[in-house]
Amino acid sequence: MKRREWLAAAATLSSIAAVGGLTGCAAPVLRGTGDLGVVIGRANGTLYLVDTSTRALIGEVPGLGDLSHASVVFSRDGRYAYVFGRDGALTMVDLLTQRIAKRVMQAGNSIGGAISADGTLVAAQNYTPGGVKVFDARSLELVADIPAEYAPGKLSRVVGLVDLPGRRFAYSLFDADAIWVTDCSDPKKVTTQKFDGIGRQPYDALVTPDGRHYIAGLFGEDGLAMVDLWADQPQVRRILGGYGKGQEPLPVYKMPHLRGWAVAGRRAYLPAIGRHEVLVVDTDSWQEVGRIPVAGQPVFVMARPDGRQVWVNFSVPDYHRVQVIDTQRQQIVQTLEPGKAVLHMEFTPRGDTVWISSRDANRVSVVDTQSFATRARLDVPAPSGIFFTARAARMGF
Amino acid sequence: MKRREWLAAAATLSSIAAVGGLTGCAAPVLRGTGDLGVVIGRANGTLYLVDTSTRALIGEVPGLGDLSHASVVFSRDGRYAYVFGRDGALTMVDLLTQRIAKRVMQAGNSIGGAISADGTLVAAQNYTPGGVKVFDARSLELVADIPAEYAPGKLSRVVGLVDLPGRRFAYSLFDADAIWVTDCSDPKKVTTQKFDGIGRQPYDALVTPDGRHYIAGLFGEDGLAMVDLWADQPQVRRILGGYGKGQEPLPVYKMPHLRGWAVAGRRAYLPAIGRHEVLVVDTDSWQEVGRIPVAGQPVFVMARPDGRQVWVNFSVPDYHRVQVIDTQRQQIVQTLEPGKAVLHMEFTPRGDTVWISSRDANRVSVVDTQSFATRARLDVPAPSGIFFTARAARMGF
Repeated sequence: MKRREWLAAAATLSSIAAVGGLTGCAAPVLRGTGDLGVVIGRANGTLYLVDTSTRALIGEVPGLGDLSHASVVFSRDGRYAYVFGRDGALTMVDLLTQRIAKRVMQAGNSIGGAISADGTLVAAQNYTPGGVKVFDARSLELVADIPAEYAPGKLSRVVGLVDLPGRRFAYSLFDADAIWVTDCSDPKKVTTQKFDGIGRQPYDALVTPDGRHYIAGLFGEDGLAMVDLWADQPQVRRILGGYGKGQEPLPVYKMPHLRGWAVAGRRAYLPAIGRHEVLVVDTDSWQEVGRIPVAGQPVFVMARPDGRQVWVNFSVPDYHRVQVIDTQRQQIVQTLEPGKAVLHMEFTPRGDTVWISSRDANRVSVVDTQSFATRARLDVPAPSGIFFTARAARMGF
Repeated sequence: MKRREWLAAAATLSSIAAVGGLTGCAAPVLRGTGDLGVVIGRANGTLYLVDTSTRALIGEVPGLGDLSHASVVFSRDGRYAYVFGRDGALTMVDLLTQRIAKRVMQAGNSIGGAISADGTLVAAQNYTPGGVKVFDARSLELVADIPAEYAPGKLSRVVGLVDLPGRRFAYSLFDADAIWVTDCSDPKKVTTQKFDGIGRQPYDALVTPDGRHYIAGLFGEDGLAMVDLWADQPQVRRILGGYGKGQEPLPVYKMPHLRGWAVAGRRAYLPAIGRHEVLVVDTDSWQEVGRIPVAGQPVFVMARPDGRQVWVNFSVPDYHRVQVIDTQRQQIVQTLEPGKAVLHMEFTPRGDTVWISSRDANRVSVVDTQSFATRARLDVPAPSGIFFTARAARMGF
């Protein structure tokens, strides 16, 4: 074969490779997505991809911008992670090709988001401009824009956004003392139910695992605001009047995250604010029924999926520790020190392990929840949030 | 280029195609597995593969043998379905390549199985020979054989096998009036805790969603046997003495499936045996607290994932109907007729739709659980069980 003929053959080869996807096919491995997850690399704007079966780091996707306080939801097939950056970016990352699939700058300052129960809509909650934007989950095209306009020309910062059944989202307006529930069944004609005067400065919120109770924490006063979304005429009710900043005997280093609150059986476990305690609350009466002393000011209080254990991390100066509460005995049964600056914890879906990020140790630890043995340690630079694809199958995540 | 040279170039092309997987790559599509599922084609030994996002049939895998009463569990990555056939076959089906990955004949007569919480072990419960066999989830190699030998040389049929946290399995011995809990932490040295004299002829069982209560139905007498697996010293306790075959005013056409029992909030919803009723039970006291009249003898009584609705299907002659109970109002709010011989129902993980198999209509219906509108109809020959990959993330499935 002559040189010219070789070139022709080579050209044929590469065009076949391009059409048939020879190169595109070699890179991404055919695999299931049910055991995938991501770790936020906060310092360098990178998403680290993990496999919870092999307990290993399997890739990284850089270029995601400001990931401080970033949060993540997943497409219903578990293939795509939607990353909400603090800088207002919404980035759709393909976990199989390990690349950015799509990215939009959707606001100036954003603080998280949610995905609708049917997986078709992704919603972002924004500080600037204050409101909620709703995107098509496949194309990231804007399908609904809901400014949080509570008075003419005045937009509130939005916090505590959660998904509800039926393409609905609930969220709180920090500057307007309000809770709004928006129905996006028809994205071209969204409707919003508004609850005003719920209490001063809601700063975060959660929905219970059954989607029934939406609860907002108040920064401007004691207590919490709750709506029973299953009621025929939902109304806001104040609960736990003693809960809040009015009573703390210690300086508050960090407001606890509400989204991490644990509901286990008939009890909810809440981080006390400014106290070294976890509060135990009856979910029927929403009255406090106990307090459990812990090693510091709790930040995340999270139930193992079966509710038999509740895991707690802490703010400065106790943020090198993690404690485990046995919900039967209502007491601490284990204290771990997985590395300095524990920022987040995530359970594998059936609760056999918990993954813990230690920012200053540049480490993610995989801990067996039965024996408390460390099963693996992953080197990740300054890890913060950890999110597994199984969240796609759960409400309020 | 001469003919010989063309042939050489063509040979190079095809060897590259083979090595690089050009043809192998064209067939299986790179995709997430979180929205996949299977439907048992009982009449022809075929597994039908479905996509719950597009609500479509996407493939079929024949050659699975006798699939009457077949059940399915999934690998933790959601890629593989483990199908337990009535003929004793255990078949591992790759949902991405749509092929049988592995298949073993592991018993003469089998009735279902489970997968360990960490996804490493698959267990099958067998009638002949009576016992449990445990397999490596990747290789399907036998790693533990546990004959249900309750007296010298006597093996019991095994029913009601469920996974528990920590590589443990609970199951019932129909012929030995016993419940066994086997710990496979070390598959080479399994240990079994035995509960004897639990009541006559346990015929099926379930574990509550938190993995705490294992409950076996009794064929030989009234009532149910329950073990609190979280107790320091677990013991068998009899509950619901009025429940059972002793009281039925009508002939019992089909013993209801226990695995489908619905636990929603603090209540469990149970199919009455031989009565047109669903029983409501308090899960603290395990006392009956109500009865809801329904359209026939219930078979499956299943809660929507959020617990706000309970869906019920029926035995002959009412098996063309499905009814929906509102758990707030404790009454029927909807009656559907999705086709003759409704055999099974499966909710998408966040409960936006339910998939219903109508065997004699050769149809699977996808129903919106809010509006009750039928969103899609799939043509499947004689469909029975429906199973979605999200089961991999849940206990007791």
